[in-house]
Amino acid sequence: MKQVKIGICGLGTVGGGTVQVLRRNAALISGRAGCELTITRVATRSKRGDIELGDIPSSTDVFDVVRDPEVDILVELIGGYDTARELVLAAIAAGKHVVTANKALIAVHGNEIFAAAAQKGVIVAYEAGVAGGIPVIKAIREGLAANRINWLAGIINGTGNYILTEMRTGRPFDEVLAEAQALGYAEADPTFDVEGTDAAHKLTIMASAAFGVPLQFERAYTEGIRDLTPYDISHAEALGYRVKHLGIARQREDGIELRVHPTLVPVNHMMGKVDGVLNAILVDGDAVGQTLYHGPGAGSEATASSVIADLVDVARSVAASSNQRVPYLGFGPEAVTDHRILPMDEIRSAYYLRIQAFDRPGVLAKVATILSDNGINIESIMQKESEFQDGRIPVILLTHTVQERQINQAIAQMEALEDVEGNVVRIRAENFL
Amino acid sequence: MKQVKIGICGLGTVGGGTVQVLRRNAALISGRAGCELTITRVATRSKRGDIELGDIPSSTDVFDVVRDPEVDILVELIGGYDTARELVLAAIAAGKHVVTANKALIAVHGNEIFAAAAQKGVIVAYEAGVAGGIPVIKAIREGLAANRINWLAGIINGTGNYILTEMRTGRPFDEVLAEAQALGYAEADPTFDVEGTDAAHKLTIMASAAFGVPLQFERAYTEGIRDLTPYDISHAEALGYRVKHLGIARQREDGIELRVHPTLVPVNHMMGKVDGVLNAILVDGDAVGQTLYHGPGAGSEATASSVIADLVDVARSVAASSNQRVPYLGFGPEAVTDHRILPMDEIRSAYYLRIQAFDRPGVLAKVATILSDNGINIESIMQKESEFQDGRIPVILLTHTVQERQINQAIAQMEALEDVEGNVVRIRAENFL
Repeated sequence: MKQVKIGICGLGTVGGGTVQVLRRNAALISGRAGCELTITRVATRSKRGDIELGDIPSSTDVFDVVRDPEVDILVELIGGYDTARELVLAAIAAGKHVVTANKALIAVHGNEIFAAAAQKGVIVAYEAGVAGGIPVIKAIREGLAANRINWLAGIINGTGNYILTEMRTGRPFDEVLAEAQALGYAEADPTFDVEGTDAAHKLTIMASAAFGVPLQFERAYTEGIRDLTPYDISHAEALGYRVKHLGIARQREDGIELRVHPTLVPVNHMMGKVDGVLNAILVDGDAVGQTLYHGPGAGSEATASSVIADLVDVARSVAASSNQRVPYLGFGPEAVTDHRILPMDEIRSAYYLRIQAFDRPGVLAKVATILSDNGINIESIMQKESEFQDGRIPVILLTHTVQERQINQAIAQMEALEDVEGNVVRIRAENFL
Repeated sequence: MKQVKIGICGLGTVGGGTVQVLRRNAALISGRAGCELTITRVATRSKRGDIELGDIPSSTDVFDVVRDPEVDILVELIGGYDTARELVLAAIAAGKHVVTANKALIAVHGNEIFAAAAQKGVIVAYEAGVAGGIPVIKAIREGLAANRINWLAGIINGTGNYILTEMRTGRPFDEVLAEAQALGYAEADPTFDVEGTDAAHKLTIMASAAFGVPLQFERAYTEGIRDLTPYDISHAEALGYRVKHLGIARQREDGIELRVHPTLVPVNHMMGKVDGVLNAILVDGDAVGQTLYHGPGAGSEATASSVIADLVDVARSVAASSNQRVPYLGFGPEAVTDHRILPMDEIRSAYYLRIQAFDRPGVLAKVATILSDNGINIESIMQKESEFQDGRIPVILLTHTVQERQINQAIAQMEALEDVEGNVVRIRAENFL
């Protein structure tokens, strides 16, 4: 059986899992691939103690993998931007195929990397970068190839979803974050996860593969979950909604919405049921309708599962000396067309608003009038007598879908009312229609 | 741009949808495929009135498509067994690739068809045959290629799931079936759907792709939903379970479980939330863990979405004159190994039992003793005083997972008790552990 030779850069969580699964399921994987996937070289600065390398040559210099002429496929699992970019570009220049789990690299440097790879005719595969073990890139690029994809929405950061799930018990953000860090679900520096950067990386990649547009991570809007309170989470539940940190990409005639932010989703929708560290992506296509992909969005072997799926795809191509290719972003380079990313003022959404009002007659009427004057319909509104405190009472409401500019104008007018104290809380809501 | 030429056999629901989507999204699809997918010939006995063929040559003889030397890919959408088998084998013999939506054909004649196709080096693709628009074959064959798949479980018949969803309102099977027929969700002859044949076709195909075993439809166990009552459905709900018509395939050391039957699933599990005509497949792999695929399991354009995804895959191969292949059933012919299908006596499951007992002291104790004597643990048991009627009271219980032989022995012993009237109702239950 033909051998295809793999060089692995980085033996941390995902690299270690990749070696383990490649070994444990070697016969099964070669039975599927039609060739043997052999690890011929490894480079890592620090390696997991449980990974035995045996007689596989290894070093601490990842560029040794690029220099090894035996290596057909370089697997980039070192993470980060600069060295990873250099490494991948060097591998491409050396005519090697690349498999990576590095969402940041693809989201930020993908256009440059894919252009270089196209020139050399090599594959750059990145399934493991998006939603861990869920084969959602394959679904979007290949499985849904018939469709004009209208939009996709994903719970694509397990740490954030774990925190939001736990906050439903009434605990504040900081307390749950500290617990998540203790459990190893959150990094010591949780910024990437809780601010939405990680989700925006993944969303940017999915949006490009879905719509055939260049990667434009720098134009993605991100809003984190730090400011969410158990108070609003429980009021959202009272309205029949659950708060999720959602990435949403929508293709419109006039541009593309590309945004990550806390979002109310219907509690009875499948997306409302995605709890803990799990991920899910809902994709709306013009022919198929809505399909959902759900599973582990992180973890050693779950992510390794996607790394190896890509390795099998690439190995089939290497073994057959074939130039048959799935385009990097689903569309051939000539079919990728630029489409502007819409500023947030122009996106369309439903909204949850919480207004801290002084308990005077007519406040609710004034709020309703402002919304009406701005052309905003109200889905439901509540003002709970039981929450009256210190002369104040919250007015909580859910709107129909409107342009964000409208809601911001209405909020400014509400905040100018004498009857309203402080800022209006605004959380976007999504009904997946 | 290179043209790849398609001949379509059958212009009914799916064929019509395929033509419509290929036309509507022509630019987008060629942008993804890297070549133009051109319909060069059509053959159909009866065609949907809304499909305009223009100057595409058409006839009523599907073998005209085989005889047309221009055709690169034959799309078989005529359904059924005999003519479809002849047609596909003739296309293969003529060196044409085949895309089909015919689950019955693949489940029953797939081994023969794939052997013939392997000899000629042509592709036979069948994503549209399983779960309509959900790209689950691609997920199993490619996306999860790293995994030893332990089991998969699917709600894979929309008609049956619609009926079971409606029966939760307390209406009997016959009434809901008649309504489903009136709405066009069920065929005039609903046997394939409600008896589980259709689901068994799909399950057989998924099991072979997941485990690398030959197709063995004739050994799949099927049990329909006709005998389910709203009474048991509501008692399952009281226990925290929902009744679904599930296809389950499990790989064990000693063989493979391959079975379609009514099954209790936890109401809080994602599989318990799949309502109406939707489909969902849950797959458990050793590396990735559990991933779920959810969406429309039928319908004109949803199924066309999968037909066209296969066409794009095949067209890439044709355009690149490549011999790169994904094996028909995920595993290369030499890696497909026979593995016996376990008889139902040997499967392992949890069980819901309903025992119609005469209301005498000690009945529950006798039932519990019989279960205990057979090594069966009880998860929960209830005997509702409010349901006492005519001197009889139902004993309803849920067991832990045991071998089916054990439960059948216990049931025989219960039915021999003087205190028990008639047959014990037995429905399998699944916790997806």
